Amino acid sequence: MKPLVQKYGGTSLSTAEHVRRVAERIDAARQTGRPTVAVVSARGDTTDRLLADAKQLHPHPAPRETDQLLATGEVASAALMATALHRRGTRAVSLTGAQAGIRTTGPHGAALIDTIDTRAVRAHLERGSVVVVAGFQGIDPAGELFTLGRGGSDTTAVALAAALDARCEIYTDVDAVYTADPRLVPQARPLPEIAAPLMAEMAFAGARVLHARAVELAAVRNVPLLVASAMHDRPGTTITGGSPIGMLEKEGFVAAITHDADIARFTIRLDPDDPERPHRALRAIADQIIPVDLVTWADDRPALSFTVAGAAVHQARRQVELAVPNAGRDVAVQRELSKISLLGTGMLTRPEYAVRVLRTLEELGVPANSLHTNQLRVSVLVPAEHTAAAVAALHDEFEMDRPRPDPVPTS
Amino acid sequence: MKPLVQKYGGTSLSTAEHVRRVAERIDAARQTGRPTVAVVSARGDTTDRLLADAKQLHPHPAPRETDQLLATGEVASAALMATALHRRGTRAVSLTGAQAGIRTTGPHGAALIDTIDTRAVRAHLERGSVVVVAGFQGIDPAGELFTLGRGGSDTTAVALAAALDARCEIYTDVDAVYTADPRLVPQARPLPEIAAPLMAEMAFAGARVLHARAVELAAVRNVPLLVASAMHDRPGTTITGGSPIGMLEKEGFVAAITHDADIARFTIRLDPDDPERPHRALRAIADQIIPVDLVTWADDRPALSFTVAGAAVHQARRQVELAVPNAGRDVAVQRELSKISLLGTGMLTRPEYAVRVLRTLEELGVPANSLHTNQLRVSVLVPAEHTAAAVAALHDEFEMDRPRPDPVPTS
Repeated sequence: MKPLVQKYGGTSLSTAEHVRRVAERIDAARQTGRPTVAVVSARGDTTDRLLADAKQLHPHPAPRETDQLLATGEVASAALMATALHRRGTRAVSLTGAQAGIRTTGPHGAALIDTIDTRAVRAHLERGSVVVVAGFQGIDPAGELFTLGRGGSDTTAVALAAALDARCEIYTDVDAVYTADPRLVPQARPLPEIAAPLMAEMAFAGARVLHARAVELAAVRNVPLLVASAMHDRPGTTITGGSPIGMLEKEGFVAAITHDADIARFTIRLDPDDPERPHRALRAIADQIIPVDLVTWADDRPALSFTVAGAAVHQARRQVELAVPNAGRDVAVQRELSKISLLGTGMLTRPEYAVRVLRTLEELGVPANSLHTNQLRVSVLVPAEHTAAAVAALHDEFEMDRPRPDPVPTS
Repeated sequence: MKPLVQKYGGTSLSTAEHVRRVAERIDAARQTGRPTVAVVSARGDTTDRLLADAKQLHPHPAPRETDQLLATGEVASAALMATALHRRGTRAVSLTGAQAGIRTTGPHGAALIDTIDTRAVRAHLERGSVVVVAGFQGIDPAGELFTLGRGGSDTTAVALAAALDARCEIYTDVDAVYTADPRLVPQARPLPEIAAPLMAEMAFAGARVLHARAVELAAVRNVPLLVASAMHDRPGTTITGGSPIGMLEKEGFVAAITHDADIARFTIRLDPDDPERPHRALRAIADQIIPVDLVTWADDRPALSFTVAGAAVHQARRQVELAVPNAGRDVAVQRELSKISLLGTGMLTRPEYAVRVLRTLEELGVPANSLHTNQLRVSVLVPAEHTAAAVAALHDEFEMDRPRPDPVPTS
């Protein structure tokens, strides 16, 4: 039978009672006869506590030492989960990222999974053990330890599922993928399914449900993926494979609205004498694997601009300053912006959506900083304080509280 | 210059302020020009907290998972120490036991260091970094993680010093090795030096200052060893190499009194039809690397007896029951005993010491359960509630509050 990889987030492991409940769920999955791997995050606020310990000693702890430090949270969590499974009489073994054969590449704090040597995991599965893997981490060939960045345990789970040809279930603190954040929009609907490329775009546009890299990997490697609540028995959202165009009729054109209320926008003035400058700036940022979005550069504009997460501003600015001489004069950074995105398909062929977005914001009195469109989304930047009102108004404008009609078969 | 290995215990790392102070000490050592390795324990009560987390989930957590769990404490501690050193502008790198090349053998929870591949440590030292090594742990060739048992960080430090041909300094929460526990005997004196074999015997007899295996290893591998306070600038105790006989005149005959107030004594009745029985029982215990002491078996006694630490009773009893049929009828366990030991040299040639010990206890009204003598100590078992009174009386009887006269040269 195809193996199963389940991933449980830190909130669902915060107390002994939580750990026991998750152990019960893992055990129930195992009893269906599927070889079962559980990927776990650090418990509760462990990661934040460890980071605070480091910050008490240094304002900017070195990324290498931060990795050595933070990776312990997931290892401890995995050992405790194996212990809870033993208490239920279930064979189980915990593995660190290194022991699970997870090889990484790239910088400390934001490494990418390179390969997985699944021999140890498979050997334990064949002996009938549940294998509990510490998420978020791996080693390079020299034995150096790396973490995958925040939310990286999702990526660990999907990568393991891809390597084991397994189904992947991500259990988290939300019930499902919603048409918008239910905390901002009470009418938001859970989506029973969504196409993987659209989900990846949503994650990138700020939906916190799944780590963007995890969804991309699931899409590329065709891993069946479910997102559901770690605490409740609700159906969750199935991330379906296939092209987003196939989903067009089924989900309607606009599937969901996401927002990311902590965005900064860099604008780098072009210099006719140094045409390579914007290229170098973006390259310097990519070298540190800082995700950028909404890159804009047009023939008739004297500047290049892009956005990064608020948390990455410090690092991004350092990289830009390395790459751009006279950065002080030629680089501007706007902070406290919110990126609000309409997710769907065929956005480029339906310019009326962009127009409706701008009109809705205008009626609300929210100034739009800029608007960007690609095939899967329309994103607009607005001052962060208007996030809630803008998301609610757009959810209403596009009537997203109403379930879509039955899919019309495409010819 | 010969490298230096310093070891810092968990109490001296409990707060950020403690970590900073220790970082300052490490830095001062490094500035003398010696390549410096620091071995650290888990911070404060981390180990106890992690164990309590596991016990909330299982009354007897599996030793393998306990190892995976507990080893994280030292790894986090090492990363934080490297971070504190960075803050001082000092190059530093933390290594897990695995990264430091520490290879172990033996059971989970009580593994022995087999070999150390010092290449990584040496490479970092050559680059001018302080190397901070997570104590208490190593891996086997298959990548399985093992801990060395409580206090194992001392052993990590001495083993690293042996492998690097380095001097070893153990910084702990006591000032020095004393003639007796100063909490029980206010007149107890710090010893400026003590011979390694005698110190090893003391550790085995219950002195908590140093891990017994660490001292043995220092003695066998001739590692220069200092024990001193992690918090105060006091001279501490130098553990000198060489035979204890050489120390005979220098320290006087009785060097110190130690006690261990949580001892259990097993007595296994002999069976004429099964003469191998005691041998099997001891072998079963040795298989689990449970330290035993005071093994007694004489031709004219119908039983074999030995002591184990109170904490090991459960495990030892299980091993004995595996090895001895009808264990219920033939095995007796006495608990809540205290082992009080007179440490010195030439004990076997001076039976009057044993007589004085028994007479002192008799005058005090303390019943002695049994008395055992070897070349380096006289040990007596008494009911644990009499520990403090007995130690104080013996310290007084042997006038240990008075510094010994100058050494008489031996011919």
